[in-house]
Amino acid sequence: MALIVQKYGGTSVGSPERISAVAEKVARMRKAGDDLVIVVSAMSGETDRLIKLAKAIHSDPSPRELDVLLATGEQTTIALLSMALEKIGCPARSYTGFQVHIRTDNVYGKARILDIDESRVREDLKKGRVVVIAGFQGADQDGNITTLGRGGSDTTGVAMAAALKADECQIYTDVDGVYTTDPRIVPEARRLDRITFEEMLELASLGSKVLQIRSVEFAGKYRVPLRVLSSFEDGPGTLITYEENEMEAPLISGIAFNRDEAKLTLRGVPDKPGIAAQILGEIGKANINVDMIVQNVAADDTTDFTFTVHRGEYKKAREVLARVAQDLKAREVNGDDKIVKISIVGVGMRSHAGIASQMFKTLADEGINIQMISTSEIKVSVVVEEKYLELGVRALHTAFGLEKTSQSTV
Amino acid sequence: MALIVQKYGGTSVGSPERISAVAEKVARMRKAGDDLVIVVSAMSGETDRLIKLAKAIHSDPSPRELDVLLATGEQTTIALLSMALEKIGCPARSYTGFQVHIRTDNVYGKARILDIDESRVREDLKKGRVVVIAGFQGADQDGNITTLGRGGSDTTGVAMAAALKADECQIYTDVDGVYTTDPRIVPEARRLDRITFEEMLELASLGSKVLQIRSVEFAGKYRVPLRVLSSFEDGPGTLITYEENEMEAPLISGIAFNRDEAKLTLRGVPDKPGIAAQILGEIGKANINVDMIVQNVAADDTTDFTFTVHRGEYKKAREVLARVAQDLKAREVNGDDKIVKISIVGVGMRSHAGIASQMFKTLADEGINIQMISTSEIKVSVVVEEKYLELGVRALHTAFGLEKTSQSTV
Repeated sequence: MALIVQKYGGTSVGSPERISAVAEKVARMRKAGDDLVIVVSAMSGETDRLIKLAKAIHSDPSPRELDVLLATGEQTTIALLSMALEKIGCPARSYTGFQVHIRTDNVYGKARILDIDESRVREDLKKGRVVVIAGFQGADQDGNITTLGRGGSDTTGVAMAAALKADECQIYTDVDGVYTTDPRIVPEARRLDRITFEEMLELASLGSKVLQIRSVEFAGKYRVPLRVLSSFEDGPGTLITYEENEMEAPLISGIAFNRDEAKLTLRGVPDKPGIAAQILGEIGKANINVDMIVQNVAADDTTDFTFTVHRGEYKKAREVLARVAQDLKAREVNGDDKIVKISIVGVGMRSHAGIASQMFKTLADEGINIQMISTSEIKVSVVVEEKYLELGVRALHTAFGLEKTSQSTV
Repeated sequence: MALIVQKYGGTSVGSPERISAVAEKVARMRKAGDDLVIVVSAMSGETDRLIKLAKAIHSDPSPRELDVLLATGEQTTIALLSMALEKIGCPARSYTGFQVHIRTDNVYGKARILDIDESRVREDLKKGRVVVIAGFQGADQDGNITTLGRGGSDTTGVAMAAALKADECQIYTDVDGVYTTDPRIVPEARRLDRITFEEMLELASLGSKVLQIRSVEFAGKYRVPLRVLSSFEDGPGTLITYEENEMEAPLISGIAFNRDEAKLTLRGVPDKPGIAAQILGEIGKANINVDMIVQNVAADDTTDFTFTVHRGEYKKAREVLARVAQDLKAREVNGDDKIVKISIVGVGMRSHAGIASQMFKTLADEGINIQMISTSEIKVSVVVEEKYLELGVRALHTAFGLEKTSQSTV
């Protein structure tokens, strides 16, 4: 008998019918003997409906009150799912984040979980009940309602699993696992049975939408065994593990990409200490997140400084940079918002030389010019022109043999 | 500077526009210097929407989970109203029933308030904030969310006012006060500036929809000065008072009526002790509320026993009574669900004889036959055929001079 925390997202609980289907699934597993804690999101569309209501009143509503409003979304789902479970004879109890003392800091809209008092949940489990918990929400130490921000329900699931020392945290979503790359671009893309925590972290940060990066970080911190599965079809999903067996690790586990990128270059910057900090300091003050940063080796006494930002912040970043350029007496500001990032990820590359050069050669063979390169221990990212995205991803998927069905780590 | 608790019902906060209008009203009063605590209901239609969602999942949902679901309705309103207040520069803070520790018993769906910890509200008031509180909801001692049942937001308002020892509890609704009778039936009906607590209690119990009887009882227990006003137009409304000045009291303050009545008669019941208890015991076991009860003086060794119930429970009551009649060997069961109750209410009648007979004569002059009579210290109720309702109410309104504009208690 295992203790499992399951999380169902907005699409999985998007209608009374779907909620009833989730209840059937949960009741089946309960009957099989597992102790179950279910974390749910708001029904799909509900959060948007609430935000629309708020915007009808205030274009920039108070973050505290917005959290009070949004927290009703998951509260609705927990009540409905508990009703659905009881209807089919499966005893259940719902709790809001407030009720099970999911204590967070007081940063409304993107609070971080500090602590969970899991005693009440354990009591209910002992009585044979399924416990249904509102994701995405908690309360600060003064009892103000907070929300955890986008994807926060995943984090609630992982945090509950950590607090309860659950045997597994299962994230049910509309895909059936983590793929070698996006199947819409590469039809041969393959579901991975397992992936290491570090690989998942890279994939999440690179824009794979399967799991929120915060929840993956949280899982890593407490070593919570995490599994991604489909709400709509049965299957083993993908297990995120903490063991690495390098003997068996594949070189590359997956290929991630991110369309929403833009790059900015400051040319002819005086090459002296403190310049990078000065440029990024101004960008940071404007609340713009920077992704890749590349500084070329100085030619004469000036250097070029390039970085990428989210495409939506390109204009704002360019304005900031124009001011910085004047202050630094830099030669010029260039930019391009028609770029994408493609990354190969795999723990196996740690122990194998030549992975990066194989990547560059594959792209060159297709006539794709690489504009920027950035590497980490288990990842190589390149920036290329947007129009080469599909071609580049497909070529790399084949070059690294990802379509093969055998997977040595399974 | 006074401390005022105001309660706004579902119609008053039925849309973002109306919520903004309430905010304007509240901000104006705050500027005038009063400390304000605002209790709100769910937006009109919202509770029905939630119940529909629940019914799509379970025809008879768990009362506990239904309360978790319904409590989201007021939570939505408190957030939106607080946003609307802050938008116009009026600092505000919202709280759910759970957050301000409105402690109730654990009868889901119709919980009773046991206790309120008002310290948090006082702190906010001290800081110059308007405090916005979710009506209709609380939490039991184990932290389960409860709701107070129909009209529960009025009760929350009164209970908050009692806990804070507020100077006045103002109930904003879609009528501008308590009337001598329903203006839809008697166009000359007049708004009362004042009414005594006991009169209000009788009017509420007689089906006047202005205030929920539980909230009036609660107000009486703690002597909370209660005022009924319109959300949509300015005006003094009607103040419910606890002082009586019999010298000045009008004989009759108002005429109430109730359409939703039905009567049942058990004829030829053996006239011996315990019979009434036996009949009403069975009715009570079937969860049917009995209103008027009349037992005639026994002729020979049997008696007739008549009582009224809500029209919706007529069929069920008749079935129960058929069984009881067999057990008691009663002669027969009669019933009529085409009756109404008309009542005259006024503290003045205590010190004046002849009020009841004036009522009976007025009805007789119109050819209206009285089927049942029931009296209390400040009320006389009669049951008549349904078709005589309007005629009877109008005749009594004129006979007791209620259309006159002078009102001695003002």
